[in-house]
Amino acid sequence: MELPEKLLKAVKQFSRLPGVGEKTALRQSLIMTKWNKEDLMHFAEAIKGLSEINHCKKCGMYCDQELCRICTDSFRSQATTLCVVESVTDCLAIERSGHFRGKFHILFGVLNPLLGIGPDELKLDELISRVENENIEEVILAVNPSVEGDATCSYLKQALPEKTRVDRIGFGIPMGGSLEFVDSLTITKALENRRHL
Amino acid sequence: MELPEKLLKAVKQFSRLPGVGEKTALRQSLIMTKWNKEDLMHFAEAIKGLSEINHCKKCGMYCDQELCRICTDSFRSQATTLCVVESVTDCLAIERSGHFRGKFHILFGVLNPLLGIGPDELKLDELISRVENENIEEVILAVNPSVEGDATCSYLKQALPEKTRVDRIGFGIPMGGSLEFVDSLTITKALENRRHL
Repeated sequence: MELPEKLLKAVKQFSRLPGVGEKTALRQSLIMTKWNKEDLMHFAEAIKGLSEINHCKKCGMYCDQELCRICTDSFRSQATTLCVVESVTDCLAIERSGHFRGKFHILFGVLNPLLGIGPDELKLDELISRVENENIEEVILAVNPSVEGDATCSYLKQALPEKTRVDRIGFGIPMGGSLEFVDSLTITKALENRRHL
Repeated sequence: MELPEKLLKAVKQFSRLPGVGEKTALRQSLIMTKWNKEDLMHFAEAIKGLSEINHCKKCGMYCDQELCRICTDSFRSQATTLCVVESVTDCLAIERSGHFRGKFHILFGVLNPLLGIGPDELKLDELISRVENENIEEVILAVNPSVEGDATCSYLKQALPEKTRVDRIGFGIPMGGSLEFVDSLTITKALENRRHL
């Protein structure tokens, strides 16, 4: 049976989300046809609102005001450690771990010449000027392991002032992981990154 | 870290969908913050559109025009078999099986005195007048098995004209199912509904 166009439109939109196939999208759309009009309006408004989220002027994190909670935190804004991440989600992941008390800087991507993403497309100049002006002593590159991530780290090591200590987060066996099931590249990295006890 | 209010609003809305927990909702919302404004507008419009879907004037199915594809189908509109279902989704499930070539009638619920759903809240009068006016010889009650569903079927059996044959769909072991894993109520029903070979 052919479904009405308005339903199919909603199905198409839901299918664009990660982890949502056509079947789930149809189920969700059908359930929503039973919602009242007001609830649907609220949903639609919430979606539109996603285009209006502010970024922190300093670090690039999402925020409601000009600066985010971290950049306005009286303790953390004095920190001399800056953690560089690719994206807002990576920043959130580190915050969730709850062990980093310094500041963040979001690059919004990594260098990728094939996709035409050079230093000007990322927030690299902003990073360098922050390191110089905010009295940063240590930069932790929490960039994901990939060819592009590695290249971005090498570039940053060169571009950052020489007196600044530049570290990259450690790679190895994840906690709770088992050597048996970990891929060989991770094992190689874990052997390289062994620590003297 | 506290997330911006606009993001949380979207997370809250997504969490209302079936099968979407807070974690999935956050993931979906975060990915959508990377969409461009136009795409978000399309999504929002599609959601709003769900409140504007027409129901077929005859059977209650979703449709773009006054009457649905089935009610306007020259072959099926002549059928003398009418399948009664609770909801649009149940109707779609039967259509998907592809073996029913008659007409449908959607009740939009079942009798449920505890929730205040009596015969007036359902499309029962419409069903009875259709059976009388459309020359229906056989009514198949494809109502789900539940106390309320059973009561609705008894009510309909009484309310429909005596000359109309009234059947209820069969209950038993599902195809591909295994006796080992099927609940005892289903087994009881399957024993009751045994067929002579």
